[in-house]
Amino acid sequence: MRRSIATVSLSGTLEEKLRAAADAGFDGVEIFENDLIASPLRPRRVRDLAGSLGLGIDLYQPFRDFEGVDEARLERNLRRAEAKFALMVELGADTILVCSNAAPDAVDDDARSAAQLRRLAETAERFGVRVAYEALAWGGAVNRYAHSWRIVEMADHPSLGVCLDSFHILSRDDDPAGIRDIPGEKIFFLQLADAPRMAMDVLQWSRHYRCFPGQGGFDLTGFTDHVLAAGYTGPLSLEVFNDVFRASDARRTAADAMRSLTLLEDSLGRAPEGPRPTVELRRLPAPTRPSGYAFVEVAAEVESARRVRTILSALGFAHTHDHRSKPVQLWRHGDARLLLNSTDPRLGHTWDGPASVTALGVAVPDPEGAVDRAGRLLAPALPRRRDPAESDLHAVAAPDGTAVFFCAEGEGSPDWTADFSTPVGRDRVEGVAAGPVTIDHVGLFQPFDHFDEASLFYRSLFGLTPDENVEMAAPDGLVRSRALAGRDGGPRVVLNVSVLSRGARADAEGGAQHIALSCDDVFAAAEAMRAAGVDPLPIPDNYYDDLACRTDLRPDTRERMRENGVLYDRDDDGEFWHFYTATVDGRLFFEVVQRSGGYDGYGAANSAVRMAAQRAEAAR
Amino acid sequence: MRRSIATVSLSGTLEEKLRAAADAGFDGVEIFENDLIASPLRPRRVRDLAGSLGLGIDLYQPFRDFEGVDEARLERNLRRAEAKFALMVELGADTILVCSNAAPDAVDDDARSAAQLRRLAETAERFGVRVAYEALAWGGAVNRYAHSWRIVEMADHPSLGVCLDSFHILSRDDDPAGIRDIPGEKIFFLQLADAPRMAMDVLQWSRHYRCFPGQGGFDLTGFTDHVLAAGYTGPLSLEVFNDVFRASDARRTAADAMRSLTLLEDSLGRAPEGPRPTVELRRLPAPTRPSGYAFVEVAAEVESARRVRTILSALGFAHTHDHRSKPVQLWRHGDARLLLNSTDPRLGHTWDGPASVTALGVAVPDPEGAVDRAGRLLAPALPRRRDPAESDLHAVAAPDGTAVFFCAEGEGSPDWTADFSTPVGRDRVEGVAAGPVTIDHVGLFQPFDHFDEASLFYRSLFGLTPDENVEMAAPDGLVRSRALAGRDGGPRVVLNVSVLSRGARADAEGGAQHIALSCDDVFAAAEAMRAAGVDPLPIPDNYYDDLACRTDLRPDTRERMRENGVLYDRDDDGEFWHFYTATVDGRLFFEVVQRSGGYDGYGAANSAVRMAAQRAEAAR
Repeated sequence: MRRSIATVSLSGTLEEKLRAAADAGFDGVEIFENDLIASPLRPRRVRDLAGSLGLGIDLYQPFRDFEGVDEARLERNLRRAEAKFALMVELGADTILVCSNAAPDAVDDDARSAAQLRRLAETAERFGVRVAYEALAWGGAVNRYAHSWRIVEMADHPSLGVCLDSFHILSRDDDPAGIRDIPGEKIFFLQLADAPRMAMDVLQWSRHYRCFPGQGGFDLTGFTDHVLAAGYTGPLSLEVFNDVFRASDARRTAADAMRSLTLLEDSLGRAPEGPRPTVELRRLPAPTRPSGYAFVEVAAEVESARRVRTILSALGFAHTHDHRSKPVQLWRHGDARLLLNSTDPRLGHTWDGPASVTALGVAVPDPEGAVDRAGRLLAPALPRRRDPAESDLHAVAAPDGTAVFFCAEGEGSPDWTADFSTPVGRDRVEGVAAGPVTIDHVGLFQPFDHFDEASLFYRSLFGLTPDENVEMAAPDGLVRSRALAGRDGGPRVVLNVSVLSRGARADAEGGAQHIALSCDDVFAAAEAMRAAGVDPLPIPDNYYDDLACRTDLRPDTRERMRENGVLYDRDDDGEFWHFYTATVDGRLFFEVVQRSGGYDGYGAANSAVRMAAQRAEAAR
Repeated sequence: MRRSIATVSLSGTLEEKLRAAADAGFDGVEIFENDLIASPLRPRRVRDLAGSLGLGIDLYQPFRDFEGVDEARLERNLRRAEAKFALMVELGADTILVCSNAAPDAVDDDARSAAQLRRLAETAERFGVRVAYEALAWGGAVNRYAHSWRIVEMADHPSLGVCLDSFHILSRDDDPAGIRDIPGEKIFFLQLADAPRMAMDVLQWSRHYRCFPGQGGFDLTGFTDHVLAAGYTGPLSLEVFNDVFRASDARRTAADAMRSLTLLEDSLGRAPEGPRPTVELRRLPAPTRPSGYAFVEVAAEVESARRVRTILSALGFAHTHDHRSKPVQLWRHGDARLLLNSTDPRLGHTWDGPASVTALGVAVPDPEGAVDRAGRLLAPALPRRRDPAESDLHAVAAPDGTAVFFCAEGEGSPDWTADFSTPVGRDRVEGVAAGPVTIDHVGLFQPFDHFDEASLFYRSLFGLTPDENVEMAAPDGLVRSRALAGRDGGPRVVLNVSVLSRGARADAEGGAQHIALSCDDVFAAAEAMRAAGVDPLPIPDNYYDDLACRTDLRPDTRERMRENGVLYDRDDDGEFWHFYTATVDGRLFFEVVQRSGGYDGYGAANSAVRMAAQRAEAAR
């Protein structure tokens, strides 16, 4: 199917928007009128530029408050429309979006609106233009797609059809199944936007918080499937008003948009009824479901690496092997494997930033397939580590710059562990409770502009499912958090971002990162760590007093928690116990968690206490 | 009256919040439970610290979902409450806020809720604690203050009263006049918050967008007057949940909060019925209404100053005098006076930043009174320019750092113009249409954290009235704009801020500034400027094509506009014509406007076109 994007979804000048859309591989654009009006390029120049970039101009939009008006107004509106149709001929755009009248004085009279739209269509026909009529969710008289279709049917003109916009339909919880009853050739245009579920005025929601399909809470696959079932063969076009995208790098946003559409088109091909005969749906290689983290790599400068090693040892990790050719250590504990690197793997020189998570190794059944899929999803490939001494691992860059490696599960090939061929120690530290330790999740602070992009990145590459956003109050402002996890286990990742783009937290380089390890006895782990001379992050006594008020935890349990800095959460399915280590370089800390029952969260209720404790720690 | 602030209104740790509140002169605080739980200070230490800072702990808050529950739950809630009352004794807090039950399973049964709250009050009494029951706007059964009062009346216990929160009442458009019928001694606490008018879910609105009285759209004076009329004598306490304040410097926020309460208290004293006999209301010196700008000062480095002079000359300004002792030039045109300074007045050395507005001279009838008022409103006084050769002007720093000078109107004293005693030129440039030019408004980009503070600064010092916020789409993101103007003329100021705190616009140093001059023939002004060799900011032809579609402007008028880069706006009251100059140093530009009829806006509809044109200009 043809793929388009509205210029309003991207930042910059009209020319910059067109170039970004072309670079990301779009076939066409919707030109938002304000972008043209503010451009020094005359319409014919825009047409030429778009043509030279391989872009069609699929829609000119929007034309507002046309129908449901009195006669004098109709004549004025028709004159205005005629001028716009002439402009569209120059522009080479053959479809205009006409939004249902949202003015307070719009007349609710279907026959009148149909007659007026028919006049508009007759005028449009003379210019070779088609009119796509769309029900705005906040339209005065017409605000449901079924209503817009009734009026179009009544007007009965070949140059008049409907435009369907997923936001206007799904934001109102309208049932999209009725779209199947609209003849496909009368659906002139399809605009796609997702959005997080928000309790707010629909106009504000629409104009500020739309996002690309797969980034929000709407079922865009189901929606679009109805439209294809109706016989629609036009473009899949993204019309996304989003405050962050408006202010972000247009090329990155366009690539993010294309990733979204690629995933959507693939999911349509997998719909139960299979691909539509009328359209060709491009498919991706099947998603390869990761079973977990093969490793997590941490880079640190010399003194910080020493602090990390002290913590890891106290947590029961053992330094078992060294890399055969690089200053990278393999640390193991149960199934958890961490690489400790004191060289910047991207730059080849000694790491001089704060201790950081630099790479995630994800264990997948089919690394080649995963790489192929990632490439088609526009994940930026990283240079391969190809020298003969090393395994041939593929990696891509996540939106925050973290390298994501595709590793074979179990004994599969390529076997990255073969590079760590120099044994240096015992398999485990004596006297430390080991237990079956795994990497529970990795928490990564994201650059403000790329939070939704990061969510879609992990979702599209690995089939992880995002939770709802959670907001947490840090002493220096709100932090938004979104966890992603596989449906049947596999790696979990928690993305955090400053709600206001500001201060240290606004910058990925400055945001906190953590590695959470799961075990089946959080107290034993904490006590072993303390016995090894490493204290947990101190949690205020006031926290435990409050816990006494609101839970039935036994006093001796609370006392043991207090001694070990253990925090507690529960939900209907189970309980969660967790403690934190100190933070290295103000950036990287470790967490140890114990899940019981079906608890599936991350202890977000305790985050404010944790962040305040970290601030107190930093001030010491 | 006693003045308090909730710790949740400020950023930082509990200790930092207490210190900030004390520094701003508050008498007490409401301690938000989460702030205590996350604090390493035990309750008794908090009490001691607050006491040493001269702060009382006026409220402990909140206690949630207590009433309207089944018996088993009630017993658990009472145990929880008892633990909190014991904590309050340690803390030295004698009033607890109990919010109406917002849980979905809250039982709507007044008799039950009254009986349960009575049990709570009986328990509280044993600890010497009072219970203030508040109707949350989103309470399940109880969400109106009148309802909370009915239940309190029914419960009939001396340790139970109501807490009134302006947000919960005014956000629902509830009529506050009924408060007068509540006995004053049963109003245990008063929480004040303003908020901008927003169409959104009331809970989200409440938790993210509250602001200090005078910064939003609610009538806090009228509201509080009802509460005083009821006989309330407790604290005026600010409970403001605001995402920006949470992330801003706590001391500045606390000073902003105190300015807000000071203004509110003064306005209460001016209410028609006069001050209440039961409370003492502190008064401010009467506001002194400025008649306009005495001057605007621009600082620029040498080459930029040359460009500014070229523009000013072309606009008909004449360099009439030099300062007697400093490298500052006085430029005049009609009533408009600009000072051009190539020395940083604050630093005393040559200005090396981009050309900037550094000072506003505001003409007031009573400079001494204005200075006194500004001081009591915590406006930071700037060092006076006191050397014998100069007039004795007082100045304060606006939140963005701009110096605001209090000048005498007309021939009043001190006469700052006496310093400009060195005549250097003619009073006006020959051959240039002069017309009655005045300074229409000054537009200043604000630091992200201080937008609401700046609005309250100009409002409180000069009695300016803020317009509603307007949002404008720049090529690199949305910009929010708020204009302030006197009711009967006087200076206008337009404050702009990036909607997302990011990029150059997030930083006041990088944000655009402009000086708008009004005249009665914008075309003559533009043509004279062009004749003098200075081009206006070029406006795209596409803009004029669109104007042809949507207005009845005559073709020759449109052509003359196009030639001169003149933009157009209109409203029900009149028309607005305006053009822009080029931008100096990417920061400072001039605008020339012509208002006709009763048009009272600023051409915001054209801002997106202007900002795109400025971006194109910057790219050349």
